[in-house]
Formats: sequence, C-alpha cells, structure tokens
Amino acid sequence: MTAHARVVLLASFLLPATVFAQAIPDDIQEQAIALRDGAMQNSIAYDVVESLTMEVGPRSAGSAGDAAAIRWAVEKLQSLGFRNVHTDEVSVPHWDRGTLDVRITAPYPQSLVATSLGGSPGTPAEGIEAEVVRVESLAELRALSREQLEGRIAFVDHVMERFKTGAGYGVATRIRSCGHVVAAELGALATVIRSAGTSTHRVAHTGSMLKNNVPGTIPAVALANADADILTYAIQSGKPVTVRLHSSARDLPRALSANVVGEVPGKGELANEIVILGAHLDSWDLGTGAIDDGTGVAIVIAAAKMILESGESPRRTIRVVLFANEEFGLSGAKQYALDHANSIDQHVVGLEADFGPGAVWKFSSQVAEDALDIVAELHQLLEPIGIERGDNKSSGGADLGPLRRTGMPILGLSADGTEYFDYHHTADDTLDKVDRDDLNQNVAAYVTAAYVAANIERNFGRLTPNASEQTCAAEFD
Amino acid sequence: MTAHARVVLLASFLLPATVFAQAIPDDIQEQAIALRDGAMQNSIAYDVVESLTMEVGPRSAGSAGDAAAIRWAVEKLQSLGFRNVHTDEVSVPHWDRGTLDVRITAPYPQSLVATSLGGSPGTPAEGIEAEVVRVESLAELRALSREQLEGRIAFVDHVMERFKTGAGYGVATRIRSCGHVVAAELGALATVIRSAGTSTHRVAHTGSMLKNNVPGTIPAVALANADADILTYAIQSGKPVTVRLHSSARDLPRALSANVVGEVPGKGELANEIVILGAHLDSWDLGTGAIDDGTGVAIVIAAAKMILESGESPRRTIRVVLFANEEFGLSGAKQYALDHANSIDQHVVGLEADFGPGAVWKFSSQVAEDALDIVAELHQLLEPIGIERGDNKSSGGADLGPLRRTGMPILGLSADGTEYFDYHHTADDTLDKVDRDDLNQNVAAYVTAAYVAANIERNFGRLTPNASEQTCAAEFD
Repeated sequence: MTAHARVVLLASFLLPATVFAQAIPDDIQEQAIALRDGAMQNSIAYDVVESLTMEVGPRSAGSAGDAAAIRWAVEKLQSLGFRNVHTDEVSVPHWDRGTLDVRITAPYPQSLVATSLGGSPGTPAEGIEAEVVRVESLAELRALSREQLEGRIAFVDHVMERFKTGAGYGVATRIRSCGHVVAAELGALATVIRSAGTSTHRVAHTGSMLKNNVPGTIPAVALANADADILTYAIQSGKPVTVRLHSSARDLPRALSANVVGEVPGKGELANEIVILGAHLDSWDLGTGAIDDGTGVAIVIAAAKMILESGESPRRTIRVVLFANEEFGLSGAKQYALDHANSIDQHVVGLEADFGPGAVWKFSSQVAEDALDIVAELHQLLEPIGIERGDNKSSGGADLGPLRRTGMPILGLSADGTEYFDYHHTADDTLDKVDRDDLNQNVAAYVTAAYVAANIERNFGRLTPNASEQTCAAEFD
Repeated sequence: MTAHARVVLLASFLLPATVFAQAIPDDIQEQAIALRDGAMQNSIAYDVVESLTMEVGPRSAGSAGDAAAIRWAVEKLQSLGFRNVHTDEVSVPHWDRGTLDVRITAPYPQSLVATSLGGSPGTPAEGIEAEVVRVESLAELRALSREQLEGRIAFVDHVMERFKTGAGYGVATRIRSCGHVVAAELGALATVIRSAGTSTHRVAHTGSMLKNNVPGTIPAVALANADADILTYAIQSGKPVTVRLHSSARDLPRALSANVVGEVPGKGELANEIVILGAHLDSWDLGTGAIDDGTGVAIVIAAAKMILESGESPRRTIRVVLFANEEFGLSGAKQYALDHANSIDQHVVGLEADFGPGAVWKFSSQVAEDALDIVAELHQLLEPIGIERGDNKSSGGADLGPLRRTGMPILGLSADGTEYFDYHHTADDTLDKVDRDDLNQNVAAYVTAAYVAANIERNFGRLTPNASEQTCAAEFD
C-alpha cells in the first residue's frame, strides 16, 4: 500500500460514516492506486505502439496499411488475452494523395514543400497556374469579392499558436476544413493554406477537408511553415506572384475497414454494462501514426490489459474499441453508434485517448450533476501523478462524439499538447517522438479511471442527448 | 569609446613601452571595437541571407538556381558599394537527384524517407530489390566477406553524435563519402546509410560521395533517422529484410559556374596585399541554403560592408570571395587557387564562414609562430563577445584549403555547431533557423578580425606548404 493510500484509508476511519458518503469504497481505491503505480513500471504501452508503428506504419482508411492494421490489432488483442476479440465492418472513403508538386513560378522560382489536404481532388494534368491572393483568416477570405479571387489561387496564411491545451488548432483546422469551400464559392481555382501545425520543420500538415459535395471542389494543399514564409515574402515584395500546382490526388471507390474490439468481461449483475476505452486505429498516410493515434491505441490496450491480468474480473465489462477511420470522417465512430443503437444505455461511461503521449495534466468530465462527487474522489486518486481538476464540459474526443450525443457520460484525461502539433498529421509522426515515462503516466491515469468506473456501485448518470452538425457556413466559424 | 576600449587604452598608458611591444596599436584596437559593437545593431547580414534564401533559394552546382545565385551576388555586391565586383568562371559537375523511392518490401512493407547522396547514380528502371545487410561502422563493412554482401544492399547504421564542435560529423561523413566504395568492392548492389545528421525530423541528409571513378559505382542513399530506426527494427526482428530502391539520379554534362568577388580596396603601400573573406555561394538542393552557407555569405559580406562604409580605406585590400560549388568537389576553391597561382603570397591571411549561424565561441588560428602575439591581442578584442582562445591548428574551412596548403595563414572563428547538423544538408536548411543576434555576433567577430588583419603593420607570416589527398582507403578512416 502506498503512503497515499494509507492517508485515504486513515481519513475514512476517522470520519463518522454519516458525513462521509464515500463514492469510491476503500478497497476499490486501494486497488486503483496499485494499478496506477504499477503502470509507471510497465512496458506494455510502449511495446504496443512500437509494434504498430514499426510493423504496420501508415494506415489511412481503405489502404493496404489499414487492412494490415486490422489484422495486427486482432492478433495483438488475442495474444494479450483479451476476450470477445472481433471486428465490426465499417465502410470507409478511400482517398489517395498521389503526387504533388507546388512551386512559385514568379517572381522568384522556388519549389515549395506541400501536402494535399485529405479529400482534395487533383489538378488537371497540365496543372493549375495562377496569381496568388493572400489573406490571413477565413473572415478575410469571406470578405473578398468574386472579382478579387476569381481565376486565382487563395492563400490563407494563418499562423497557428502553440498552447498546452492545443487551443490553437481550432482556428487552424477550421481554415483547413473550409478554406476551399469559401474560396471555391468566390471562383478560386485552388486553395493553399499554411499548415495547421506548429512544426518549424519541412514537413507539411495534412488533415481532412469538409467535402462540399458539389462538382467542382477545388484542390487544396498545405505548405510547411517555412514554405508559407517563402510565399509570403514573395507576395510582400509587391510583385505579382504566381504559383503552379500539379496534383494527382483522387478519390477511389469506398472500401471496407473495421472497428476492432476486445473486452475484459465483467462479472456479476453489472456485467452487461460497458465502460468503453476508445482510440482510433487508422492514421494519416504521411507518418507512421505514432502519436496519432498509436499512443492512444497503446494507452487503452495497456490500461485494460493491466486490469485483465490483475486476475480479478471487474464488475462491468471494459470494452476496448479501436475505431476505423477517425481521420477522414469518423466512419468507425458513427458505425459503432449505429451497430449498438439498441444497447447505447449499457455504455455507462467512455474514455478516449487521442491527443498524443504528452503527460496527462487535467482530468475533466461530462457527467450527470449528481455524479460529480464520484469525479471528485476519482480526481483525488489522479492528483498524485500531476493531474489537476478540470470542468464538467469535457467532449471526450471525436470518436466518442456519437455516443456522447446520445447521452453517454465522459471522463476526459487531457494530455499535454504543447508539442503535439509539431508532429501531428505530418511525416514526423514517428515512434521517436514518444516518451516512455509520459506514455506510462497516461496508462496510469486511464487504468485508474477505468478500474474505478468499472467497479463502483454507482454510475455517472446520463447526459441530455444533443445533435451536432457542422458546416462551412460563416455562423460556425 | 566603450568601457572596454578605455581599459585597454589605460593599460597601455600605464606600462612602460619597453615591456609592452603592442602588436595591434591603440587606434586600430579602438576602431575594431567600434566596428565589433556596431555589428550587434546591424541588419545587413540578416537582410542578405533573407534575400538569398527567399529570392534564389536552392542553388546546387550547375543548376538554374546556381546561375540565379551568381546574378544575385553580383547585383548584391554592386548595390552595397563593393569595388572590383566580378565573376571568375568555374567548371562544375552537374548532378541531378531526380526522383527516389525507397521502401521495405519484407517482412513489414513500409515506405522510407530517404535522399540520394550527391553524385549517386540512379538505379535501373526496374529498381534494385535485395536483402539488406546491416553494419554499424565502416570498419564492420570492410570486415564483411564478399559472400556476405554480394548481390545485397549494405546498410551502414551509424548514429551521429551531437557536439558543439561538430566533431561527430567526421565519422559520419566518412561513411557517406566512402560507404558505397567499400560496399561496391564487396559486390553490393546499393548502399543505404543513416543520415549524417542529428535531426529527429523526417528529412534525410544529402552530401557528396567520393566518386570512385570506376564504371559500376553503386547507388547510395541516406535515410532520415526515424527511417533508419524502422529498418533497424525490421532487421532486429530476425526475419530476412528486403528493400527496394528506385532512383533516377544522374550526372549531367559539366556546367559553368563562377566565383563571385567583391573588394574593399586597400590604400597605400600594403594595398596589393589581400585579406580574404570566404564563404560559398552554392548550396545543396533540398533546403534554401540558409545555414549552409547563406549565413556565411551574409557574415562575410556584412563584415566587409561595415569596413567599406566606415569611410576610411583599410591598408590592405579586403576581398570577399563567394566560392562556386563547395558542396560537390570544391570546384571554386581549386579554381581560385589556380587563377591566383602567381599572387598566392599576396593573400596574407584568410577567414572563412561556413559553419552556420551559431554564435562564435572559439577563436583559433594557423599562423607563423612569431605572429602568435598578434593572435593573442586580437583574442582580447574578441573575448568580450564570448569567444575563448583555441589552438594554432585551425584548418579554416574547406574553401580556404587550397590557399592554406600553399602557405596562407588562417584565422578561424568557430561557430557553435550544437544544432548545425539538425538542419545542414537537409530540406530543413531554411531561413527560420537563423537567429539574428547570433548572426550579428558572427559579424562582430569577423569584422573585428578582418579590420585588424587589414590594418596592422605586421602580418601573420607564412605556413609550410603541404599536400592533401584523401581516398577511401582504410588508412584514411
């Protein structure tokens, strides 16, 4: 028993039961602390992310890597002793980035490091060459007249800010998602954006565009930060600047992928209730998907595996779900909600790991008001590993969105995102960016929360169902 | 006058002349200090490297960028008011890297980030696919038998170490220069090396191979560090590992380039003596040549420009030489020595800037023994800007090699190389890696040394001429 556990137990002895309505009983606290502290000495998570990135690598939806990842995941979950290991088919879009060449042709010829945004169409075979119009925000882009943009290339040059919370990504990703839609409406031939990332290296950031689903969607590419600097310098020279793009990106026929599921079965009357641990198996194609979301896969597998090998079944079933195609439309998350429409209420709470391997620094939630005392006690178990208490507005993560919107509560463990966007969605997303200690601290946090959620008598209530539909209309900017 | 200058002058008043044989007179010290301190508030150097990288960018020998760089340099030196601005023709090799695709085909298919080494031939159109044999050093490669390597691909997996002095580059670059020669002698089909750099980003390091000048030179490529990790992991799995390479790299006909020269003319009886400030105008083709050697070009131009605009002619002529094709055979340096064979002795001392924009931390030299008192006094002027005294074995830099070997003394200002090999010879060599203050500290050091060298009565003597011929024989490892 750790010193901390002794203090907690001691406190419970000293207080009369009437004023101490303990949400998490001592024995569960004690076991949660043992798991938490054991996680710091564990190698499962690193082994998992190493195996996935080295033996599978890139695994974008519908690709050969995607199929290899599904085989890998089934085999990995089985070999680790998970139960009920299976795949649930998911139809996914299949897009291929082909080749891309972007260069300034005037006034200073220079080749630019760029990457196509996910879903971008290619250019005609002869390419697109046109004058560039530069703006710094989506609002500035919307404010252009058709006369200013028609027949030209829009360059949205927003510099993403670095935050521990990753807050800079919201604005940047909105430009990535919708820049091409706004520009196309004003007659632009193509859109070029500065990468939605903080890297100072010559790797450009990909990520999905919202498809506007009308014929004539224009090609959209992101420049590495240094290359956006080069283009900006040329434009600020005052001379007309032209850029030429050649891209063979294209949509392929939809493909079959799968959510991969493995369980630590519950025992007893609560066994049909589910604590879901989610991460996504797919990755973008540029890196090997180490931090997005190899580490998430590793964290949830390692946390569940620790409970599995503790030898004692949890009361509720812990279900690890490795979602298909998070990156390019949340196909797996949506399919999961459809597949389990009749058992949504059995999903009593969800945790998702999809923000890289930075140490968890904040524990938020979105639970019923009358369950906040459980969250507060759970936070006491997390505080010793450097985790502060957040609010009760956690969104949980993209893959849990469909379940959350039907009422499933969320426990949210926020990883430190200071460096996340240096690597995320770029070729730099590789294993060497993963710190073992920070990764294990994540496992410690997840195993603590999952163990408690799976074993306490009470649950986290239900949320009020809500809908969400994002479009590229200005009102959503 | 600065406080430091006052102390120096005061010291000279207090000491009797007989025990104080001052090599650098007070007035020269005072003016050197004024230039040194003025450099820290100057923007010339940054403006120059910005202009070169943004308006010209990549400029490998024989390329269109090389020609553009020569035009840029002539115009820049003229517009800054340099005298005797001219070009001296240099014949250069012209190599084109074409396209490259490297992938592991078994046991785990993965695409690898790689770049062809400078001078590598391409592969046959159908590519080269073979089993990989991994070693960690050139010695291990030499120790393989023909049976072990014949028909296979050699992988030399040496991890370059990081040092302030850049000392790790020696071993790494020896592998880059000669790995393919040793491997070809043992019947290998191609050579793959881990990048001779310290970057943890997905950018591979290029650089020249020594051409062994026999038919059948084999293709040689470098992997980014993360990709060398992926290949090593596959090999350490114990299963046979095959790699496939496709490269369209090729030699083109030799091309004309030029050394670009500009002067600050001397005045008086020493005017025909030359203090040479050298840097190289060419760069590798992957980045925009900011730190290699845009900053060197900027430092020597800015230092000379400060003396030019001081309004008073130096006693000796300060000659800025922007050498052609340092990277791929030192063509410009060799040609310069040939062109000036009859006036070598007029080159009284040389300074070269070719180690990036890190702050200068050490002042070394290679001068005649009886000139070491000048060096010691010069060091006193450099110490206040954080520069320690080195030895008298400075090599100066690659471009000054031919002049040094004929006897020209060297003043060596060592930039901090801790981060240099994170960017050097990769796509990451871009302007954003240049720190303005560190760059100006370099200018301060160079202008101090150049001003003193151009104006003192004495010179630095001559060195004993020597020859240098490096081959890929084991004795030179």
